[in-house]
Amino acid sequence: MTLALSRPTARLGAAVALSCRECGTRTEVGPQYACPECFGPLEVAYEWTLRGEELRREIESGPENIWRYAALLPVPADVAATPNMNPGRTKLVRADNLARELGMGNLWVKDDSGNPTHSFKDRVVAVALAAARELGFQVLACPSTGNLANAVAAAAARAGIRSVVFVPRTLEQQKILTTAAYGGTLVAVDGSYDDINRLAGQIAAEREDWAFVNVNVRPFYAEGSKTLGYEVAEQLGWRLPRQVVIPVASGAQLTKVDKGFRELVELGLVDDASYSVFGAQATGCSPVSTAFKQGWDTVRPVKADTIAKSLAIGNPADGPYVLDTVNRTGGAVEDVSDDEVVDGIRLLARTEGIFAETAGGVTVSVLRKLLAAGRLDPDADTVLFNTGDGLKTLDAIAGSVGPSATIPPTLEAFEATGLAG
Amino acid sequence: MTLALSRPTARLGAAVALSCRECGTRTEVGPQYACPECFGPLEVAYEWTLRGEELRREIESGPENIWRYAALLPVPADVAATPNMNPGRTKLVRADNLARELGMGNLWVKDDSGNPTHSFKDRVVAVALAAARELGFQVLACPSTGNLANAVAAAAARAGIRSVVFVPRTLEQQKILTTAAYGGTLVAVDGSYDDINRLAGQIAAEREDWAFVNVNVRPFYAEGSKTLGYEVAEQLGWRLPRQVVIPVASGAQLTKVDKGFRELVELGLVDDASYSVFGAQATGCSPVSTAFKQGWDTVRPVKADTIAKSLAIGNPADGPYVLDTVNRTGGAVEDVSDDEVVDGIRLLARTEGIFAETAGGVTVSVLRKLLAAGRLDPDADTVLFNTGDGLKTLDAIAGSVGPSATIPPTLEAFEATGLAG
Repeated sequence: MTLALSRPTARLGAAVALSCRECGTRTEVGPQYACPECFGPLEVAYEWTLRGEELRREIESGPENIWRYAALLPVPADVAATPNMNPGRTKLVRADNLARELGMGNLWVKDDSGNPTHSFKDRVVAVALAAARELGFQVLACPSTGNLANAVAAAAARAGIRSVVFVPRTLEQQKILTTAAYGGTLVAVDGSYDDINRLAGQIAAEREDWAFVNVNVRPFYAEGSKTLGYEVAEQLGWRLPRQVVIPVASGAQLTKVDKGFRELVELGLVDDASYSVFGAQATGCSPVSTAFKQGWDTVRPVKADTIAKSLAIGNPADGPYVLDTVNRTGGAVEDVSDDEVVDGIRLLARTEGIFAETAGGVTVSVLRKLLAAGRLDPDADTVLFNTGDGLKTLDAIAGSVGPSATIPPTLEAFEATGLAG
Repeated sequence: MTLALSRPTARLGAAVALSCRECGTRTEVGPQYACPECFGPLEVAYEWTLRGEELRREIESGPENIWRYAALLPVPADVAATPNMNPGRTKLVRADNLARELGMGNLWVKDDSGNPTHSFKDRVVAVALAAARELGFQVLACPSTGNLANAVAAAAARAGIRSVVFVPRTLEQQKILTTAAYGGTLVAVDGSYDDINRLAGQIAAEREDWAFVNVNVRPFYAEGSKTLGYEVAEQLGWRLPRQVVIPVASGAQLTKVDKGFRELVELGLVDDASYSVFGAQATGCSPVSTAFKQGWDTVRPVKADTIAKSLAIGNPADGPYVLDTVNRTGGAVEDVSDDEVVDGIRLLARTEGIFAETAGGVTVSVLRKLLAAGRLDPDADTVLFNTGDGLKTLDAIAGSVGPSATIPPTLEAFEATGLAG
């Protein structure tokens, strides 16, 4: 850890400190991730240099990727000029067909499957990479449930640095192959994601120049998810939606979207309108949903068992902060069965032509469940987050969809199917 | 065919006629695709309403998708307001790492895997859908080698109309499942793509209100590929690259990128600079490459046998026009083995973090082969087209990449691998 403390010149934008989310203690900007006082998680604190109209003009004249928000991230001002995947600015799709099916008024899907490796992880990795380079790290690493593995391996390839990625050996073959394709080091581990996460922490302690994006540079990494909130607000014409529904794995994304929204208010870019944040989990790994329903303020770890592998974090680092956010904004956390996950994938694909991974299926079905329970206002502007791509979790639907018919190549054979209509 | 001839009000932008590519005969804009005089293929002809600076301002102030070029396409002016996938404006990636490996100066990858269903087919389908609706068609259909199937099924879902898609039953499981996920009619056919194409022609003749995007609305469909040329020129700062390398299946994409470049010159948007167009095929289906090398002006059909299934069209409709384009611009057509296809995929992924489908591997390896043969200038600005996504052709690399090691979740086990470095 002495490595980066010897680099006081790190150019990380408006970031001025790391602040403990538990006790508020501030430390200097560097590769720390645990509070020196209480071991609580650290978060980036800023002193903004731009605000209001001036900031808005800078953003709107910026590139069509997350770097248009560089002034609000812990990255160098020239970050867009360094080799990186340039993620972000994914589509905010007006989902009228899905809204109709659900009996809603105004619904959008923020479709982050449009990122370079087809998940929101490209955002957080891009910010982690930029910060890690400034802080002197030489290797980009991570424990991953799959999407992060793809994102880290691809980003490191583009940046021309080494990647070392740890994944459960039981991961979908799609995510293993795509990670291996980028040519970095890929280690399959006999264990759960939580086991691998622990191993990553141990290795990070041994290797000072390895940036485990979601472990020892996590404070920077997590800030990347703020861009999802910024983009939604900008794409709606600089206003906040009334409701957002977000999948919960570690919980970082949900809390950072909320942080992004609050920053936009503070910076004078959007009106201070009330909004509610809803979290979505799969029942087979629903520690945060359980805690929410029980009224706990902590989250009890569970053993994950769900097809939604990208959400299968049994001991979610940001779980308590998800509870805080959801309770503060009048939202909720809900969970759905694996069958409902598949239904959600198919519903979104059929109505909007968006083929989501299992996490997207979770989110769609949680939206439906919350509507049925009267927890979510069907008439309020709502944004649903699809954070990944169905191509990476094909196994989930392999048993439930397929060809309508198989025929020889003749007109008669086709007519005989009755599909001609 | 009487259907659309009764619709003289079709609002299809600056399109004023369909013109035969063989004999030049002009017919009115409608759902024709074969010349009434000689049965040659028809192509959209325009009378431009905007030019030069005025056109450039309109484009630059347009949406971040292909509809910024609506004035140059056979689509209604309000096309962006109708439900569609809004494809295009994919990244033009500066590929310095790959250029270094290949000994080149300035190389870019136009990465069309960033489209909504992760291939360039979203472009052509979006234009076909827009035209088909104006012409009164009720169903969106296609024969497909896979990517088109995904694009048609997704676009129809978003648009709220029926899709009927025909694919070879031997297609990659990934492409079958993703198409089926969108909920349209999917027919698996025991036969080659060429068999299925013939079947589609027969069905199109029977069903007046079915738009087979690449058969009976092909003149409109094919125009969508011009947007690849427009985007490359705009992303380079309104100039043409000196060399482009493009995969050849039917050959339509290559000829339409060339058409797009020539239109930009004619419209005063770019300087009239010389450029060369290179075509890329897999050796297992290389009828155009063979014809080029033999100096033929026609293309002899072949039976396809290659892992590059999205290029496996043995009887390519635009083959002769590819030869015209390549010969006129001083380019070439080359082909590579399936092993080289896999090498190309891995090279692009390792150097640029872009995971291409087999067609992309074909194109990368053809670029390398042309460089080695001195057919391509290593110092001239070159754009390589990646038209699809590696997630859809995982089988191609399944045998050649995988985890570096599989370990239990302990620090000792990791250290023992020797991968700690």
